[in-house]
Amino acid sequence: MQFGSDNQTGASRRVLDMMEKASSGHARGYGADEWTQAGVEALRTLFACDLEAFFVTTGTAANSLALSCLAQPWQAVLCHHQAHIFLDESTAPELFTGGARLVPVSRGDGKITARHLEEYFRCAGDDVPHNALAGALSLTQSSEIGLVYTPGEVADLCGAAHGRGLKVHMDGARFANAVASLGCSPADLTWKAGVDVLCLGATKCGALAAEAVVFFDRELAATFAHRRKRAGHLLSKGRFLASQFLGWLRDDHWLELASHANRCASELALELSAIPGVDVVWPVQASEIFVVMPKATVSALRQAGAEFSEWYASALPPGFELRDDQAFIRLVTSFVTEEDHIWQFVSLARESLGIAAA
Amino acid sequence: MQFGSDNQTGASRRVLDMMEKASSGHARGYGADEWTQAGVEALRTLFACDLEAFFVTTGTAANSLALSCLAQPWQAVLCHHQAHIFLDESTAPELFTGGARLVPVSRGDGKITARHLEEYFRCAGDDVPHNALAGALSLTQSSEIGLVYTPGEVADLCGAAHGRGLKVHMDGARFANAVASLGCSPADLTWKAGVDVLCLGATKCGALAAEAVVFFDRELAATFAHRRKRAGHLLSKGRFLASQFLGWLRDDHWLELASHANRCASELALELSAIPGVDVVWPVQASEIFVVMPKATVSALRQAGAEFSEWYASALPPGFELRDDQAFIRLVTSFVTEEDHIWQFVSLARESLGIAAA
Amino acid sequence: MQFGSDNQTGASRRVLDMMEKASSGHARGYGADEWTQAGVEALRTLFACDLEAFFVTTGTAANSLALSCLAQPWQAVLCHHQAHIFLDESTAPELFTGGARLVPVSRGDGKITARHLEEYFRCAGDDVPHNALAGALSLTQSSEIGLVYTPGEVADLCGAAHGRGLKVHMDGARFANAVASLGCSPADLTWKAGVDVLCLGATKCGALAAEAVVFFDRELAATFAHRRKRAGHLLSKGRFLASQFLGWLRDDHWLELASHANRCASELALELSAIPGVDVVWPVQASEIFVVMPKATVSALRQAGAEFSEWYASALPPGFELRDDQAFIRLVTSFVTEEDHIWQFVSLARESLGIAAA
Amino acid sequence: MQFGSDNQTGASRRVLDMMEKASSGHARGYGADEWTQAGVEALRTLFACDLEAFFVTTGTAANSLALSCLAQPWQAVLCHHQAHIFLDESTAPELFTGGARLVPVSRGDGKITARHLEEYFRCAGDDVPHNALAGALSLTQSSEIGLVYTPGEVADLCGAAHGRGLKVHMDGARFANAVASLGCSPADLTWKAGVDVLCLGATKCGALAAEAVVFFDRELAATFAHRRKRAGHLLSKGRFLASQFLGWLRDDHWLELASHANRCASELALELSAIPGVDVVWPVQASEIFVVMPKATVSALRQAGAEFSEWYASALPPGFELRDDQAFIRLVTSFVTEEDHIWQFVSLARESLGIAAA
Repeated sequence: MQFGSDNQTGASRRVLDMMEKASSGHARGYGADEWTQAGVEALRTLFACDLEAFFVTTGTAANSLALSCLAQPWQAVLCHHQAHIFLDESTAPELFTGGARLVPVSRGDGKITARHLEEYFRCAGDDVPHNALAGALSLTQSSEIGLVYTPGEVADLCGAAHGRGLKVHMDGARFANAVASLGCSPADLTWKAGVDVLCLGATKCGALAAEAVVFFDRELAATFAHRRKRAGHLLSKGRFLASQFLGWLRDDHWLELASHANRCASELALELSAIPGVDVVWPVQASEIFVVMPKATVSALRQAGAEFSEWYASALPPGFELRDDQAFIRLVTSFVTEEDHIWQFVSLARESLGIAAA
Repeated sequence: MQFGSDNQTGASRRVLDMMEKASSGHARGYGADEWTQAGVEALRTLFACDLEAFFVTTGTAANSLALSCLAQPWQAVLCHHQAHIFLDESTAPELFTGGARLVPVSRGDGKITARHLEEYFRCAGDDVPHNALAGALSLTQSSEIGLVYTPGEVADLCGAAHGRGLKVHMDGARFANAVASLGCSPADLTWKAGVDVLCLGATKCGALAAEAVVFFDRELAATFAHRRKRAGHLLSKGRFLASQFLGWLRDDHWLELASHANRCASELALELSAIPGVDVVWPVQASEIFVVMPKATVSALRQAGAEFSEWYASALPPGFELRDDQAFIRLVTSFVTEEDHIWQFVSLARESLGIAAA
Repeated sequence: MQFGSDNQTGASRRVLDMMEKASSGHARGYGADEWTQAGVEALRTLFACDLEAFFVTTGTAANSLALSCLAQPWQAVLCHHQAHIFLDESTAPELFTGGARLVPVSRGDGKITARHLEEYFRCAGDDVPHNALAGALSLTQSSEIGLVYTPGEVADLCGAAHGRGLKVHMDGARFANAVASLGCSPADLTWKAGVDVLCLGATKCGALAAEAVVFFDRELAATFAHRRKRAGHLLSKGRFLASQFLGWLRDDHWLELASHANRCASELALELSAIPGVDVVWPVQASEIFVVMPKATVSALRQAGAEFSEWYASALPPGFELRDDQAFIRLVTSFVTEEDHIWQFVSLARESLGIAAA
Repeated sequence: MQFGSDNQTGASRRVLDMMEKASSGHARGYGADEWTQAGVEALRTLFACDLEAFFVTTGTAANSLALSCLAQPWQAVLCHHQAHIFLDESTAPELFTGGARLVPVSRGDGKITARHLEEYFRCAGDDVPHNALAGALSLTQSSEIGLVYTPGEVADLCGAAHGRGLKVHMDGARFANAVASLGCSPADLTWKAGVDVLCLGATKCGALAAEAVVFFDRELAATFAHRRKRAGHLLSKGRFLASQFLGWLRDDHWLELASHANRCASELALELSAIPGVDVVWPVQASEIFVVMPKATVSALRQAGAEFSEWYASALPPGFELRDDQAFIRLVTSFVTEEDHIWQFVSLARESLGIAAA
C-alpha cells in the first residue's frame, strides 16, 4: 500500500527503453546531441509553440533555475503558502536567484486567487530600493494540496501578475496530472493563459530523473545556459535526460500514466469520504488526497504496512481544528498504484473504525 | 514640523566634537586604533559584561552581518511581519547570510509572543534537508510600530527560542528609546534576558552614521571580521565610528537624546488622541506614533509643511478597516524635535477638522 | 574515430542493467533507500575505510559541493592552472562556496608540486581579514593533461597542505584511469596519502551520470546534505545513482573499463610519437594525449571524420612555442575506443604527412 | 615618521568643516537630500560630463559594487596581479558580483599592457557556458605599486578591452595622486580614454570615509541603487558623504592634498635611491615607494619609530631576487606627511648603513 509519494516509484518501461536506446554509440556532449534536439522539438510539438527548453534532473533545480531567470536578487517571488519551493526545497530558490525572497500570499486558502494578489499589492510598499518588489508569481499545477487551476484561473492570475510587471512561473512537478484532470491542452494551460516558464516534471510520473524547464517567453531564457552550468546541472551525457522525455511523451504515454494516478486518487477519496470519522479535507482533483482521521486508524494502517505521510498542519483548510486524537495525512497515488492496494487501505481503515465494509 | 524619520536629523554636537577630536594625528587603520578599542570598552562598561563588538555605518549592514553569524544559508530567521529587516532592507539579509530566509510569525499582532513561536513550530516541518529550519529569532527593540518589549517579554521569547536551538538577534536601531522608555538597564534588556546579539544603533538618535554589533555570545562573533571585510564594511579610518559612540555614550548623553524624543512622542500622541476623528492606533511607548486620520487632514498638514510618511497597511492593528477617506500615517520624533512643532501640528490637525483648540 | 571526450560515450551494459534492476518496485525517496545504502557500503569496501559518501549526477556538482565543505567564502582554493574546476566549470565553485576564490599555483608545470605550494606561501599575504587565505588544495587525478600523481606525490602535497591548515580535495573525474595506470589501491592513492575528499567520477568511464563525493574525513561532511539539497542535487529517486555505482564497481568492472581506455591511449601515443612532425607533448599516463601537429594534418583528420578538440594554449608545456602552421590538440580514449580507430587515425596522420605506414 | 599608509591619516580641516555644516537641520534621508545632489553635480563639473554617481564609505564597497554592475556572476574580471581588489579586499568582489572570478593577467609586470590582454585572450577558452569569459577589465590608478597609467595607456587598454566586449573599471583609491602626477584633466584620464566606471577615493587623501562610484556609461548604473542598498551601503544620512566630497573638491583642494603627498614621495625616493645598499625598485610616480634595503636597516628604522609595511614578495619586479638579509618594504606618503619626517627617515637609514649624510 504505497501512498507515500509518487517519487518512490521506479521508471516506466517505455522511459527505460528509450534511455537504453539512447545509450548506444557516441554522441556530442553537454546537450549538443541529437537526442536533446529531438527532446526540445517534442516539447515544441506538445505545446504547439516555438518555445525554448532545457533538461535537468530534479524539480528543485528546475524551479530554482527558472526563478533565477525571472526575479532579480533584490526582488520577491509570490507563491502559495504550501508551495514546494517554499516548504520543501530548502533555500534553493535563494541560492539560485542570488537572494530573492519567497513571499506566500495565499493566507490559508487552497489556491492563489487574484484577490490574494490585490491584497498583497495593497499592503506591500513600492519604495525602492528599500522594499523588495515582487518580480514573479509562482503557481503549482497541480497544486501541493491536490487542486488544479483551470485555464481561466491561470489566465486571471497571469493577467493580474503581468499587469504589475511580474513574470509567471509554473511548477509543473505534477503538470501531467493537471492536464489529465482538466482534459485541456498543454498550451491552453500554459502560454495561452500567460505562463512565462513551466517546469515540466516527468520524474514523479514515470521518468527516472527528468524535468524540463520550458520557456514560452524565450527572452527570459537568455542566461539559462550559464545558470545551469554553474549550478552543476548541465549533464555531459545529455541524451539520457532527453531520451526520458521522448519515451514519456510519445503516444501520450505521459497522460496515460497520469490518468491512472488520478483515477486511483478519485477512487480512494470516494471510498474514504464514505467512512464516518474520516474527512477528505480538500477536493481531490489530481493525485493527492488530504485526509483527517483518528490517530488510532493511522496506527492501524501503518501497522499493516501502509505508507503515507503526516502532513504540515499549515495545509489544513482555514478554520479546521485538528483534535488531539486526529491525524492529518497525505496520500499520493502514482502511475503504478495497484487497485488492490486501494481496497486494502480502505478496508483496513473501516475495520479499524469498526465499520462494516461498504 | 519634521516627523518624517529620526534619520533625517543631523548629528548631536557632542558626537561631532568627539569625531573631530578623533581626526587629529595618525592612527592605525582598520579598527586597530585606540579609539576603536576605547569604543568597545565603553560598550563593555555600558552592558556590564565581556562582550565583543564591531562598528559599522548602517543598520542594514549591522543587522545583516549579525544575522549571517546566527543562521546558516539553509535556515530561516523568524521575525515580526513589520520588521525592518523584512520590509525595509531590500534583500540584504539574504545577501549576507548566503540565502537564509526571513519568515514573519507575528500574524498582525503588535509584538512577537511566545505563542507565535509555538504556532510556528506546530506548523513548520522539521524534515531536513528539505525544510528550512529556523536558526534565529529577530526582535526589534523598540519595535517598528513603536512598542517596547519588557525584559520579561524578551526573556520569555529568548527562552522559547533557545529551547528550540535558535539564536536571538535584537535590532536595536531605536534601542536607546526602549531603554529610556523602560528605565531598565541595558544589560537587563539584552544578555540578562537571553539576547545573543544586539545591533545597537546610534544613527537615528544623534550619531552621523554609527552602529555597533554587540555579541554577548562571543563565540558567535568568530567569523564576523571576515564577513564585515568582504562586505566592504571595515572602515580604514575606524576611529571615526568609535568616536561617535564615545561621544554618544559619555555621561548618558544617548539616554538624554532618546528621552527627549520619547517625551515629544508622548505629548504628541496625547494631544492627537484627544482629537475626535483622529485615532492613535498603537500604544505609544517610544518615539513612533501611528495615526489614522481623515485624508483631508493629512493634506492640510502637508500643505502647511508637515513631514511624515503614509505607512504600510499591513501595520494596522488586526481587524482595523481603513475607510476610503482615511489615511494611515507614521510620525516619528527625534532628539531635535521642537516643542513648538508638536503644538503647531496638533493645532493644524484640529483646525482642519473644525475642532477648537483644547 | 571518437577521440573527442570520454563523456561522449554511452553507458556500460552492466551499469545499465543494474539501473534497470533498481527501477523495479517502490523505494524510499531522497537517498533513504537500500540501493543508496548499498552504494555507500560498496565504497567503504573499495576504500577499506569508514568513509561518508553522497551521490550526484555531475562532476561539476561533485567538485563544487565538495569544495564548499572545505573552504570558507573568504578563503582561497589552490589548484592547477589547467584544473577543470578552474577552466571548465564556469564559476560553479564560486556559486557553491559562496564566493571562495580559485588560485592556480602550478606556473605552467604539468603537475602541482610541494615547491609550488612553498612559492605560493612565500608570496601570499596572511593579513586577515584583508587577504583571502588558502583553505583548500585541489588536485586532479588523473590530471587534466593526462598525468598521474603517485601515492608518494599525493602524500607530499597533502603533507604540505595540511601543514598549512589546508584541506585536500581530489577531483577524480578520471580516478579510475589513475588507479588502473598506477596499479595501486584506491586507499593508497587517497586517504592513506592524506586526501580529505575525493570526487569519484563514474560518468566518463562507463556510467550514465554518476559521481560520488567521498569524505574520508567524515567531519567535513557535516553540512553536505544541506548543500546538496539546496543546490537541487538531491535526486528523489536516489537508487538510480547508487545502482550505477553498484554496477560499475562490481567485480572490478570499473578498472577493466579504465584499463581499456589507458591501453588505447598508450598505443595511440606510441604510434603518433613515431611520426615525424607530430609531437606528443606530455607523457601519456592515463587516457589523454596532447599532440602538436601540422594544421594541415588536423584538417585532413577532421575531414576523414576524426573527432577531437583543439586545446588551450595555456596547456602547452612551459616554453613550448607553437608555430603558426601547427595546432595543439587533445585526444581522449575511452572504455569503448575501438582498436581499428586508433590505426585508422594514425594511418591518416601519416598519410597527410606523406609518410609511409610504419 | 608615518609611512604606513595614507589611510592612517585623519581628515582634512576643510572636509570636516563641510561635514559639520551639512549636519545642521533636517534633510531627506537615503541620498534624497540637497547635499547629495550637489555632490553629484560637483562630480559632473569636475569630469565635464553627464555622469551618474553614488557615494559609499569604503573603497572595497565602491570597487565591488562597481564590478557587480560590469560582470555577470559567470564571468571573469581581468586585473593586475597586485590589484587591491585581488589581494586586499578579501573575497568582496565575489560576494558582490555573485561569484564572478578575478583573473590576474600582468605576469609580474608593473602595469597591465595591451600585450597582457592579447596573451590572455590567446590562451583563454571561449567555450560557453564552460569557460568563464572575461566581462570586465580593472585598472588601478595610480597603481598598487605606485605607477600611473598615462591617458594614452588607458586609452589603449580600454580599446583592447572594449574590442573584446569587456567593460572597464578604474580603481581610483589614489586617483587624485595620479591626476596630480600627470597634470592632465580628470576627463582625459577616464571617460575620454574609455573608462566606464571610476571608483574615486577621497578617504586616502583627506576625507574621513568617502568614495564615489562614478558611472560614465550611465546605463551600467541601472541596478546600482539596488545593489548598494542590499549591501548595507546606502547611508540614511547621505549628506555626510556628499559633504566630504564637496569640501574635498572645492577650489582644487583635493589636488593640493595629493600634490603634497606626491612631492613628499618624490623627495623621499630621491634621497633613498642615493643611498648605497638601498634600492627603490619601481619608479615613483605617485605617493608610494617600494624599497629593498637590509633587514638591519629596517630594524633600526622601526626601532626609531618609523612606520611602514613589509610588502608582498610578489610585488617585486620580475627577476628581482631578494637576498636573505634584505627586506622589501612599502612607504606611503600622504597629505599630512611632514618634511621633517622624510629627512629623519633618510638620516636614520644612512646612519644604520654607516654612510655619511648627503
